[in-house]
Amino acid sequence: MNQTDKLKQQLSFIIEIDRLKHVLRKTKPIGSDRYENDTEHTWHLAMMAVILAEHANEPGLDLLRTVKMLLIHDIVEIDAGDTFAYDEKGHEDKFDREMKAAERLFGMLPDPQGRELKELWLEFEDRETPESRFANALDRLHPMLLNVHNGGQSWKENDITYERVVARNGRMVAEGSKTLWSYAEIMLEEALMRGDLRRGENGR
Amino acid sequence: MNQTDKLKQQLSFIIEIDRLKHVLRKTKPIGSDRYENDTEHTWHLAMMAVILAEHANEPGLDLLRTVKMLLIHDIVEIDAGDTFAYDEKGHEDKFDREMKAAERLFGMLPDPQGRELKELWLEFEDRETPESRFANALDRLHPMLLNVHNGGQSWKENDITYERVVARNGRMVAEGSKTLWSYAEIMLEEALMRGDLRRGENGR
Repeated sequence: MNQTDKLKQQLSFIIEIDRLKHVLRKTKPIGSDRYENDTEHTWHLAMMAVILAEHANEPGLDLLRTVKMLLIHDIVEIDAGDTFAYDEKGHEDKFDREMKAAERLFGMLPDPQGRELKELWLEFEDRETPESRFANALDRLHPMLLNVHNGGQSWKENDITYERVVARNGRMVAEGSKTLWSYAEIMLEEALMRGDLRRGENGR
Repeated sequence: MNQTDKLKQQLSFIIEIDRLKHVLRKTKPIGSDRYENDTEHTWHLAMMAVILAEHANEPGLDLLRTVKMLLIHDIVEIDAGDTFAYDEKGHEDKFDREMKAAERLFGMLPDPQGRELKELWLEFEDRETPESRFANALDRLHPMLLNVHNGGQSWKENDITYERVVARNGRMVAEGSKTLWSYAEIMLEEALMRGDLRRGENGR
């Protein structure tokens, strides 16, 4: 492939992923009455990786790999949509929908670039490397951080209990960063005391 | 400083920069009726750096440095606001306003982290390194790319002529990537032909 064709493919991909600005999440920016989209969330995660890398469990993290992984981790949602963390039914076929999306979207890029980004997305999903464990920890921590500073907005709107927050996120945050999970536990206790989060019944 | 105090400072910074989601630009996401904010723009730029790095004039670019620089380059606008590229009056005191913002915002972080990010922001502003020249090229190219796919939206809304687009962006994009500027010139010609951009009078 000549350089011009290659550049054209790359720019087509860059234009296509502009659509991620339309994929809304369940959380709102702090003090805002609108939901945030995947690109805002992703920028915030990439900043968290830059600022918090030293707190990863596993030393010697490849920060560029981590940031690239975060930058692309939600791109599949352009086709597959956002699956809310607590939507158990939505998670049943999530991987199949997202794999199809990864093939179409990263397939727009020239190889080996497209193949590399698809593999990086799979690495994020598989959580078998230090970088992907830390990236997933941040992805789980981020909505908690927003909720804690936003009166428990997405917990309240979706009737999510303390027990579900811990069950859904505890192990995954701790696998990436024990330090961050310890801090998150304190934040959750404080949210309980303020009434921004409620305990469930029968441990759910 | 102990680790807990350090982490608290870092998380305060991460919460503070959530406000960048409220700083609006003059461009709209493609096919959207709302203006995009700085975090959406920044995510898109970071993706452009990952995808287009091979087209930088200077080989051997440090991609992590470039991406970090882009991730933080607009954070000062939390205090200083977005200065539209073609607002000549707004640019007179832009640097002073932004320097004050950099000191407050990056000063929230523990040192040396805060100092490093402030220096990285200054490096972006000074354009004296390969990474900052490429990062600035992308920052200028991005609104052109959106305009070309959005019927010339921000050019039309602000009555920006072809001559001003070239005068404002040509040198800076070409200094980072001659390849990208050559391609941008073709896109601008096509925008002229479609009527999405107009020629000015007396070369302005």
